[in-house]
Amino acid sequence: MKKINVGILIFDEVEVLDFAGPFEVFSRTRLLKGAESRRSNDSAPFTPFTVSIDKEPVTATGGLKIISDYTIKDCPKIDILIVPGGLGTRTLLNNESLLSWIKSTSDQATTTSSVCTGSLLLAKAGLLEGKRATTHWGAIEALKSISKDIQVLNNRRIVNDEIITSAGVSSGIDMAFMLVENLYGEQVASDTAKYIEFHRSKENV
Amino acid sequence: MKKINVGILIFDEVEVLDFAGPFEVFSRTRLLKGAESRRSNDSAPFTPFTVSIDKEPVTATGGLKIISDYTIKDCPKIDILIVPGGLGTRTLLNNESLLSWIKSTSDQATTTSSVCTGSLLLAKAGLLEGKRATTHWGAIEALKSISKDIQVLNNRRIVNDEIITSAGVSSGIDMAFMLVENLYGEQVASDTAKYIEFHRSKENV
Repeated sequence: MKKINVGILIFDEVEVLDFAGPFEVFSRTRLLKGAESRRSNDSAPFTPFTVSIDKEPVTATGGLKIISDYTIKDCPKIDILIVPGGLGTRTLLNNESLLSWIKSTSDQATTTSSVCTGSLLLAKAGLLEGKRATTHWGAIEALKSISKDIQVLNNRRIVNDEIITSAGVSSGIDMAFMLVENLYGEQVASDTAKYIEFHRSKENV
Repeated sequence: MKKINVGILIFDEVEVLDFAGPFEVFSRTRLLKGAESRRSNDSAPFTPFTVSIDKEPVTATGGLKIISDYTIKDCPKIDILIVPGGLGTRTLLNNESLLSWIKSTSDQATTTSSVCTGSLLLAKAGLLEGKRATTHWGAIEALKSISKDIQVLNNRRIVNDEIITSAGVSSGIDMAFMLVENLYGEQVASDTAKYIEFHRSKENV
């Protein structure tokens, strides 16, 4: 089985659950239900990995330190791109090499998505022009301020308008499950949710 | 304000969301509501940190690599001990120095808790004797097999019997919010849940 590469961007002051939630979902999804199937990668449809800007360890919000699998210079082809948020997004809004990487990676990916204020980076990379999108409730105005050509929706947990944006932090877990469901069906998504004992929020999606 | 030290154990093959969920909750809790208060640590009541067995980077389930803040030999006093689960717990059931650290740390802590199969380590350290406890649904029999003096409860998300055990993976987030609520009240817990847009599961608690 050819596995789907899920590239999750990480950077200093990335919000922990923004990247760790989707990482958990994609790393624990199995096409076979139950607990036993999760003991190996045999029926795992995804290969999730983290991608950082350079080789330095990343310090997430709260001080959690992560060593990425790849950098934006050496990472394999990404099928599903996940751009998480966090306070660290603000200083990256002027990082042209990162924005250019996000744009070119998105162009080659089958799916581009953001969690929380990761939407600000997608917007700054020009990916949300003419689209509906959402973000963390505290960053609605910040997203609007990047471009008046983005239709920013409030009170939505996930917005799917070719580019998929989700609201704050935990909504990234629901977004990941939505992607799993779209690719492999409701049963695989709900078996995996049962495994990680997560109660999916399906309203406002 | 004297901050409460939250020590979160990590080890190879720790389940990502088991430790990252509680880390997120404790690192983002603020005594002041809203988004602005989360931009600094001024009203943060907790200092969460990770603790590993040795100085090597930890490889969590799915391959996420973390550099811990401390090891079990050099970590500061822990007020709230969190023992997460994951397949890696199985090989640690015979690690006497770790089990002894868990026991002595628990003896000095105000709160000892586990997420998922972290309960197996608490049980093996002798901390669940004569108590009610729970674990991941797939590990109920494994927990029972450690000691017949543990009253293992199925279909419960959190069990609080001096030692606090939670069910699988995501239930650790609900457990963390319960601890926040017990210490600082429902408003602080729900403000923080709103910030991370997490819908708390309060049934079966």
